[in-house]
Amino acid sequence: MRTTQDLQACVDVALRRRPADLLIRGARLFDLATGELAHANLALAGDRIAAVGEGYEGRETLDARGLTAVPGFVDAHCHIESSLLTPYEWERLVLPHGVTAAVCDPHELANVAGRAAIDYFRACAAGMLLRLQVQIPSCVPALPSEEAGARLPAEAIAPYARDAALAEFMNVPGVLGGDPDALAKLAAFSGRPIDGHAPLASGDALNALCAVGIANDHETCSVPEALEKLRRGMTLLIRAGSVAKNLEALAPLLTLTLCDRLCLCTDDRDPLDVRDEGHLDAAIRAAIAQGCDPLAVYRAACLTPARAFGWRGRGLLAPGHAADVVLLEDLAECRVAHVVCRGRVVGEAAFAARPPAPDDAPFRGSVRCRPLTPADFASRRAGGRAIAIAEGTLLTRDVPAEGDGLALAALVERHGGSGRVGLAWAKGFGLKAGALASTVGHDSHNLCVVGTTPEDMAAAAEAVRAAGGGFAVAAGGVCRACLPLPIGGLMSDRPAAEVADALAALRRAAREASGTPLANPFLALAFLPLPVIPEARLTLEGFTHV
Amino acid sequence: MRTTQDLQACVDVALRRRPADLLIRGARLFDLATGELAHANLALAGDRIAAVGEGYEGRETLDARGLTAVPGFVDAHCHIESSLLTPYEWERLVLPHGVTAAVCDPHELANVAGRAAIDYFRACAAGMLLRLQVQIPSCVPALPSEEAGARLPAEAIAPYARDAALAEFMNVPGVLGGDPDALAKLAAFSGRPIDGHAPLASGDALNALCAVGIANDHETCSVPEALEKLRRGMTLLIRAGSVAKNLEALAPLLTLTLCDRLCLCTDDRDPLDVRDEGHLDAAIRAAIAQGCDPLAVYRAACLTPARAFGWRGRGLLAPGHAADVVLLEDLAECRVAHVVCRGRVVGEAAFAARPPAPDDAPFRGSVRCRPLTPADFASRRAGGRAIAIAEGTLLTRDVPAEGDGLALAALVERHGGSGRVGLAWAKGFGLKAGALASTVGHDSHNLCVVGTTPEDMAAAAEAVRAAGGGFAVAAGGVCRACLPLPIGGLMSDRPAAEVADALAALRRAAREASGTPLANPFLALAFLPLPVIPEARLTLEGFTHV
Repeated sequence: MRTTQDLQACVDVALRRRPADLLIRGARLFDLATGELAHANLALAGDRIAAVGEGYEGRETLDARGLTAVPGFVDAHCHIESSLLTPYEWERLVLPHGVTAAVCDPHELANVAGRAAIDYFRACAAGMLLRLQVQIPSCVPALPSEEAGARLPAEAIAPYARDAALAEFMNVPGVLGGDPDALAKLAAFSGRPIDGHAPLASGDALNALCAVGIANDHETCSVPEALEKLRRGMTLLIRAGSVAKNLEALAPLLTLTLCDRLCLCTDDRDPLDVRDEGHLDAAIRAAIAQGCDPLAVYRAACLTPARAFGWRGRGLLAPGHAADVVLLEDLAECRVAHVVCRGRVVGEAAFAARPPAPDDAPFRGSVRCRPLTPADFASRRAGGRAIAIAEGTLLTRDVPAEGDGLALAALVERHGGSGRVGLAWAKGFGLKAGALASTVGHDSHNLCVVGTTPEDMAAAAEAVRAAGGGFAVAAGGVCRACLPLPIGGLMSDRPAAEVADALAALRRAAREASGTPLANPFLALAFLPLPVIPEARLTLEGFTHV
Repeated sequence: MRTTQDLQACVDVALRRRPADLLIRGARLFDLATGELAHANLALAGDRIAAVGEGYEGRETLDARGLTAVPGFVDAHCHIESSLLTPYEWERLVLPHGVTAAVCDPHELANVAGRAAIDYFRACAAGMLLRLQVQIPSCVPALPSEEAGARLPAEAIAPYARDAALAEFMNVPGVLGGDPDALAKLAAFSGRPIDGHAPLASGDALNALCAVGIANDHETCSVPEALEKLRRGMTLLIRAGSVAKNLEALAPLLTLTLCDRLCLCTDDRDPLDVRDEGHLDAAIRAAIAQGCDPLAVYRAACLTPARAFGWRGRGLLAPGHAADVVLLEDLAECRVAHVVCRGRVVGEAAFAARPPAPDDAPFRGSVRCRPLTPADFASRRAGGRAIAIAEGTLLTRDVPAEGDGLALAALVERHGGSGRVGLAWAKGFGLKAGALASTVGHDSHNLCVVGTTPEDMAAAAEAVRAAGGGFAVAAGGVCRACLPLPIGGLMSDRPAAEVADALAALRRAAREASGTPLANPFLALAFLPLPVIPEARLTLEGFTHV
């Protein structure tokens, strides 16, 4: 809601009766409505663009000569927890990359802490600079069979339908089988956007998912899969994450004809990738380098998500739109020089002016399992099949547990204190020695471990348990490195830069101690238990074919 | 809101566990998401498409072999009152032309009857087959200086902001001058779409209008005007009305690059034009005949308005979308063979199944003025300037009152009983004799008359007064024909076909009695007092330069 004072201020700036709060002067504007490039000034009033044109005075001025202005980017689907940062710290990391709005699903913390997690994220969003749209986790736990830290049935989340939308609906069997709780959730949120999660969905099942109102999908990996979903009316969120990287395969679809059905998203992106490669800026750069029309790419990054999620006044450099502007040194390279968000130049002063961060105390002390010993990791219970992982995708294969490269994987229940342990063989980690442990373990976030000896597995698991959650590397029976994640066992309480450095150090330690060639072995480990992606998974029952 | 039963029915049809309620078999589908044309069946469940594909069973089947299916058309801005029909009768007229949704502004009846008019239209919408979105009239009266039958200040309409959007905001001087009531209305509806009305707006004024949230415009007449508005973020509603016809001029913009910012609308379209030429089907046909890409045209007709107004599940032939389907004999010609709306084949049975029409009694007896005599129409008070009209546009010119073709125009206050009469010269009606009178007189709907003698003007005016509103032709001092419009002086209580015939007879009588060459002299007369369109108008003060 805007006030008459806001409106009057915009009129006064537009009619040059008073100076703009901030004047962005001299930039070339990329008009995503018409595709034109033309020089004009942007006169901002509060958190809105009040006027676009020649001249104008400003109380403050940002000299943007030589730069190209585009609207702020929208991450159409992400889990902030995957950055290992709190929302307040996460925006420090991504805003300088031009991300001024994001649709987040606090699914990870909700699996640990239930509704308190949703309320925490909403409280964070209220104080943040960027527009954070907090969707309501639809599948906690991801499947009814899962043991997570919380259960959110329809009656627990329906009250949020008043002003929020439903996050990725992963319970595909629930829809197809007519599960009452699944349908009750979909009905409760039927007037709002319902995000999807439907890897490889096709044919009759895809029709059914679309028919119940699931509007988009971010799990699509190939052009044929994408075309079938587009034909059934879905908006596709092309993913450029740390584990799942679908942009290269789907870039051929990013045309002017299709770009109003396509968005960009990161889903899960770790802080080192953001720091070293970028965020949506990197995805934009990669798509244009692949030959996509820049107008189609920037529309997908800025305009289409605003329309798909029903946000008014966002996605164009036009009066009445959000004063969220990215100033680029180069349009095709998407090299960000400055970011303006909510009318303010992004920098330390803008971050410091936020209200205090919401309290994270309720999410500490979340690792509740008994001490673990080598006896918990006895490989004789692991069975004859293995989960084969592959870099760049969340999909896994069900393969025989034979040949080189087998490691033992374990999942330890850590919410209810039952101490149950599931064991399975895993392939693709490339471990030569040692073990890795993590309390990030999608989506129930039980404690997961992969290793070469029971002693190292126990040492790594004990290290993260003692830290109240986190990542650890063990070798020679002792912990070699640990990154504590005390908030829900998922997020650090440290600043973004510090967490990025610690993660880099941890990965180095993992490579040295275990010999893994994976760039990001902890994310690969964290997705090993994910029960909603085909075709082989680690559960508390051990190896499971999905 | 959908129920779990609705959702379950869709799933069951999609998974072929039960037959579709209606199966549309054998059509070629035009996929507005991808632009592809391919054969598939459409399996409907209730008012939704449940599945698209091969096979399926149906409790009923519509054989659509040889036909092409497109989604139902959306009239993005219309005043149903201009059809002279009640909403229930209006949909009988337009649904067979493929219009399955419309955004209407009950501005005309609201100028006569205030909030009761809004509530009447909303009650009609609840029972109609097509989706009628009733916007809330923002400017009753159109300008503060007007004498209409009602006043709707901000506090009167703000309660509707809970679930409705704001209709065309015409009070441009109010925005630019910071009128508190104008800004209060805009603030109250700031979370919702705000429709615009900004003929020739440009430069700083256009920035100001966009900055306060006005999102679209249907008054644009030329490509340069359109481009400036597109650059400022507006969605343009290209108008194919009975008086204002902007499609030919704006068709060059209907490209794949721009079509997601363009819709089609009729604004004001009379029942004879609908019967004889068509509705949006005629506009689609004309645009394609002018060389526009059919994909761009059908997107503008079906998909863009759904996205612009934030409607989910509308605009594509896809599961989960509204079961609103138009079956065409020819895609380029847009020749409609069948229409399915809300899952039902449009025809007498579907209309008859509607709930009873809401009561129109509160709007009868609305012409409240004293008997009129020739002395009320004395030309000596008409001044030295004339209002020059031109067919095909609402714009008028301020010209000297000299030369051939002058007629006297009069506006009689008819709501409060003051009996005030404003007089002005008019050019362009081409009257050789007689007079025309109308209680439709935008936007305050006072009684307007144009004629060649005071006696004929009085006779025509008395005829419509006695009828409780309507159109009349007089010549030789007597009424020659009258079409009564007893509902608010704006709408007939008769069926669509009967009103169309009566209007044709009336126009014939007008041509014969007065010699006017205009195809539609009563609409031209009705727009003579419209105070929000430049540059010369008839008001209760007489000639007025706008």
